Amino acid sequence: MERKKNYFAGPSVMPVEVLEKLKEDMVDFKGQGLSMIEASHRGGMFEEMYDQCLALFRELLGISDEYDVYFLGGGATLQFTMIPMNFLRPGSVADYIRSGTWSNKAADDAEKLGKVNYYYDGKANNYSSLPDPKTVKPSENSSYLYLCSNETIGGIEWQDFPDTGSVPLIGDMSSDIFSRPIPVDSFSMIYGGVQKNLGPAGATFIIMKKSLLEKQNSNLTAYMDYKLHSKNKGLYNTPPVFSIWAVKLVLEWIKANGGTEGMLKRAIEKSSIIYDTIDNSSFFRSPVDAAYRSRMNIVFRLPNEELEAKFVEESKKEGMLGLKGHRSVGGLRASIYNALPVEDVVALAQFMKEFERKNG
Amino acid sequence: MERKKNYFAGPSVMPVEVLEKLKEDMVDFKGQGLSMIEASHRGGMFEEMYDQCLALFRELLGISDEYDVYFLGGGATLQFTMIPMNFLRPGSVADYIRSGTWSNKAADDAEKLGKVNYYYDGKANNYSSLPDPKTVKPSENSSYLYLCSNETIGGIEWQDFPDTGSVPLIGDMSSDIFSRPIPVDSFSMIYGGVQKNLGPAGATFIIMKKSLLEKQNSNLTAYMDYKLHSKNKGLYNTPPVFSIWAVKLVLEWIKANGGTEGMLKRAIEKSSIIYDTIDNSSFFRSPVDAAYRSRMNIVFRLPNEELEAKFVEESKKEGMLGLKGHRSVGGLRASIYNALPVEDVVALAQFMKEFERKNG
Ligand SMILES: Cc1ncc(COP(=O)(O)O)c(C=O)c1O
Ligand SMILES: Cc1ncc(COP(=O)(O)O)c(C=O)c1O
Ligand SMILES: [Mg+2]
Ligand SMILES: [Mg+2]
Ligand SMILES: [Mg+2]
Ligand SMILES: [Mg+2]
Repeated sequence: MERKKNYFAGPSVMPVEVLEKLKEDMVDFKGQGLSMIEASHRGGMFEEMYDQCLALFRELLGISDEYDVYFLGGGATLQFTMIPMNFLRPGSVADYIRSGTWSNKAADDAEKLGKVNYYYDGKANNYSSLPDPKTVKPSENSSYLYLCSNETIGGIEWQDFPDTGSVPLIGDMSSDIFSRPIPVDSFSMIYGGVQKNLGPAGATFIIMKKSLLEKQNSNLTAYMDYKLHSKNKGLYNTPPVFSIWAVKLVLEWIKANGGTEGMLKRAIEKSSIIYDTIDNSSFFRSPVDAAYRSRMNIVFRLPNEELEAKFVEESKKEGMLGLKGHRSVGGLRASIYNALPVEDVVALAQFMKEFERKNG
Repeated sequence: MERKKNYFAGPSVMPVEVLEKLKEDMVDFKGQGLSMIEASHRGGMFEEMYDQCLALFRELLGISDEYDVYFLGGGATLQFTMIPMNFLRPGSVADYIRSGTWSNKAADDAEKLGKVNYYYDGKANNYSSLPDPKTVKPSENSSYLYLCSNETIGGIEWQDFPDTGSVPLIGDMSSDIFSRPIPVDSFSMIYGGVQKNLGPAGATFIIMKKSLLEKQNSNLTAYMDYKLHSKNKGLYNTPPVFSIWAVKLVLEWIKANGGTEGMLKRAIEKSSIIYDTIDNSSFFRSPVDAAYRSRMNIVFRLPNEELEAKFVEESKKEGMLGLKGHRSVGGLRASIYNALPVEDVVALAQFMKEFERKNG
């Protein structure tokens, strides 16, 4: 089999070793006479696997007992609703940092449910930069401060995080979770869809500080209620079994490859190859502030849109998928998540240089 | 491989042919050089597969153009929130038929969001029966009438549905969808988790009458908004790709096995084997009204709880999984969904008779 080079932004490339394991156990899980996806989520082989998955998740991110960890369904987008519903207290305000498509969508949902304050809106710079974390201060009477650690479409990523004191900090880490160590203790809640660095679409990871639950709004319906989910470690209702099973295998792969420190090294190595190619040429251009360049989603531009279209076209012929920028911003984007082999990044850099040679 | 006999209530048994196909294509989908779970949900191989899945879903249930069909995440439980949020109009009331665990949970969520009326509450008969559909009339000024077509835990199933006139009828068909033809036109919305008759947990099917959307409440956040999901056929955000892929294969299996008529024949044949065993013995007893017995979830009792525990224990030794009744109601339950082979039902009936012979 000739594997495609997969730069999709999510769903995205998986470690081939994980796919092989899923394949091996798909019909008959470890000789138990049924597939993992046929097993009840109450006890037995599912819960054993789930508990191992959660333990590994905690171990690799260094999450203390002050936090609950579990998975939900509905994608990261559902959390845009659940967060303000649970934590934006009537009479209070929530601070949102508008840094691009994903934080903006979260903020727009929050505005429907309560009062929102914008400490920062990147609109003026076309969402190409972020505020200096040291300057970020939540407003008085803030219910929480919300940020997106990596704007998957804009290609900007927080390198350090603000200190919000007693105000809870909430982060969407959909597209850079497990790409580096994170200071979990700075956050009251971290969440994200698993479909970039962690596995197949269908599950959302939730890292919830128990103390935040004390500030929860009342009268929540069942699925909206984080306290209910915490109490049931995400098994209040049927979990997305397959995605969780695959996440567990990806976590094992991450551990075998050096954990979050190993992933950071990998991410620096891979992203540098592309950013160097961009910086060492006047043909390619990065539209984002160098201080906040994403190591996961590398956005770049060519001299004009015709050349960009040609780049996408010709890259496909080389078995390279997903290099077209998001339709809302145009340009080009290479998502180079954990599972993307270094060779596929090297191949992209070579293709870029060759394309410049022919078209520059 | 020796397959277990799988009577789990959901997640539950899958057609082994479908598992084999998932296995075959897990690493490399049809020679395209990547797995289906690595493909972007925007266009390409995912959307082609998704469109085929939706078309087959419509074809097999005979769904007209007056309805949108798509999948969401979050399980059926999330719909307990979304339905009243979208359709329980302020100043109006929603009618819920309380027929057991699942409709009760839906009603309890609705009560948090608006005014709810109970036309029927099965509490008095321990949720062992249902109202005669001919007698069911929605209250004046009703936003909708809600029912659960098959109470998975209680083991009761609507055989015919009420005529609610101009009041929208909404049905949770999580555990009997595709087990029989259904009069879609009687409903304004039908939904359910896929993890019983349709595939692996992680996706929820939505059949939404377009005209119901005109009565939607305003100011909904993105994920809560059925109109937004309809407009995007469920792809407003990242869909649960694997579950959808597997559902598509299950639908093909259903089609190859006679469609909903074939499934009905199968369900009658299989459920009769167990109900006959119960009826022809004074050892086994069905706690539910014979007029509303479920063909999917067969609940039965033994003379005492010790014998019930022994039954579960000994059945496990015979490779039979999931026969313990739900912890909330006790007793025994055999879920015999579409994918469960007839032989596994025959084996259960034989085991029951043998158990009676030894312990009766
Ligand atoms: C940073 C970020 N947040 C949220 C989302 C939305 O996730 P989902 O599609 O799972 O709802 C995405 C999707 O790509 C994302 O990249
Ligand atoms: C009839 C019915 N409705 C709703 C649910 C809840 O579904 P989920 O676990 O997907 O939220 C179930 C689960 O078994 C069910 O059987
Ligand atoms: Mg944004
Ligand atoms: Mg340059
Ligand atoms: Mg109920
Ligand atoms: Mg009897």
